[in-house]
Amino acid sequence: MIEGVIITQLDIIETPGGNVLHAMKDSSAGYSKFGEAYFSQVHCGAIKAWKRHKTMVLNLVVPVGKIRFVLFDDRKTSSGEFQEVILSKENYCRLTIPPMIWIGFQGLDSNVSLLLNIANIVHSPEESDRKTVDSIKYNWR
Amino acid sequence: MIEGVIITQLDIIETPGGNVLHAMKDSSAGYSKFGEAYFSQVHCGAIKAWKRHKTMVLNLVVPVGKIRFVLFDDRKTSSGEFQEVILSKENYCRLTIPPMIWIGFQGLDSNVSLLLNIANIVHSPEESDRKTVDSIKYNWR
Repeated sequence: MIEGVIITQLDIIETPGGNVLHAMKDSSAGYSKFGEAYFSQVHCGAIKAWKRHKTMVLNLVVPVGKIRFVLFDDRKTSSGEFQEVILSKENYCRLTIPPMIWIGFQGLDSNVSLLLNIANIVHSPEESDRKTVDSIKYNWR
Repeated sequence: MIEGVIITQLDIIETPGGNVLHAMKDSSAGYSKFGEAYFSQVHCGAIKAWKRHKTMVLNLVVPVGKIRFVLFDDRKTSSGEFQEVILSKENYCRLTIPPMIWIGFQGLDSNVSLLLNIANIVHSPEESDRKTVDSIKYNWR
């Protein structure tokens, strides 16, 4: 487990007409403050990689489909560790990612998957670094 | 338009592998503070009605499918007004609903629709009132 990463099991509450799926409360692990919430769609097989946030803490929830997240830690405190987490309704968790971790993700469902990020700051392009998918070697399968 | 209700157009940003869909920022119309974010699934044709929150401000976004929201205002300042809003990718907006409005919604997509509520307080059963669907007459079609 990469230092600072938190995986929190979330509740799914069965109700008539459609379930309620928890995402985050102000008392939740990984919550500090609210900056922005946004969705990313991920098509089947598509890989969105790599991105590293300098100050944003990400809180990721997958209410639709199945997404593989790959985290790569090249901070000075790390020996170059990878961590893979697959989120879906079957593993319905919130994935908290601290700043300065490289992040990539891949759609594993035959339909479009959806992730919600509840971030502590508003997104801005200056706040993140990008690398091409090939520049960090990983077996995406 | 019911007093206090806000409808805010949201951006959809086309990106390779799947679009990014905005939901809410700390500077957005309708945002006061963060209490809880949760999802509700709505099956095709299912009606979830009626519910009234005493203090919760709801901020509703529909990233998947199509949902009809019906609001009923029986506050003393109102003459018993209804307001209908249909949210989907085609009308990608955030619907902000103040406290003391009766709320019902219905899934209009052949697949399961999904709504995200970003609320100013944490959900608690004591904070809301419920009525059966038939107790407020509305033509759900």
